[in-house]
Amino acid sequence: MTSCASDESDVEHARLVADVFARACESRGVLEHITGRWGTLALAALHEGPFRFNALRRKVDGVSEKMLAQTLQALERDGFVHREAQPTIPPRVEYSLTSAGEAVAVKLRDLIEFVEAGLPGVHAARARYDEAKSGRAG
Amino acid sequence: MTSCASDESDVEHARLVADVFARACESRGVLEHITGRWGTLALAALHEGPFRFNALRRKVDGVSEKMLAQTLQALERDGFVHREAQPTIPPRVEYSLTSAGEAVAVKLRDLIEFVEAGLPGVHAARARYDEAKSGRAG
Repeated sequence: MTSCASDESDVEHARLVADVFARACESRGVLEHITGRWGTLALAALHEGPFRFNALRRKVDGVSEKMLAQTLQALERDGFVHREAQPTIPPRVEYSLTSAGEAVAVKLRDLIEFVEAGLPGVHAARARYDEAKSGRAG
Repeated sequence: MTSCASDESDVEHARLVADVFARACESRGVLEHITGRWGTLALAALHEGPFRFNALRRKVDGVSEKMLAQTLQALERDGFVHREAQPTIPPRVEYSLTSAGEAVAVKLRDLIEFVEAGLPGVHAARARYDEAKSGRAG
């Protein structure tokens, strides 16, 4: 259950054994960076184009400076986000997607569009669920 | 920025204005149920077929009983998971995906497969990042 690829040189081996269901597998941590509260929104925002830090923070409404910085750092380290610091005064730092980040962002946008379009269905399901609960309680 | 569909009867309106980037939009909460630490893994597991609670808990290695129960309840309320309690002694409770849950799970499996297959690339990116950091520090 906890088997997981750890040798970066062995791509075929990774395909066979990386397993997010195993708690010790590093792939679970990578998935969490992508699907975390702010990771998903940051990647989806960057799919629209490069952003400077403060503009990205305005786009991802509600994120704190600290959380956005941590999120971007994890995504940069994993190879999904590219950070470009231009040697100007004051320094201009821009974030964009790498090709791996682009591939992930496309999948996340697809998921987000499904969720946004399906919101009325979620409202209906919640109403049914809450009614059934109150019926059982009454 | 905070506009968001709230009327369940108005599907076209929802398509136009639901916006996960707005912190007040309910779609963000729905997205978090799906992409949360355990939501993603529970939905991806149920894509393999119905599970009883304890079997699902073994599959989603590392989840506590309490967290799995909360995760499944949120997903059931949102209409992604169906909970079937059979009137046996002891009661047999089985969880499966609804059609909306199935659609979400397909997208999540796709994302998970990308992450699992891309793990060697992440390892390489991390090594480059850590080397650059230690180079700057040294």
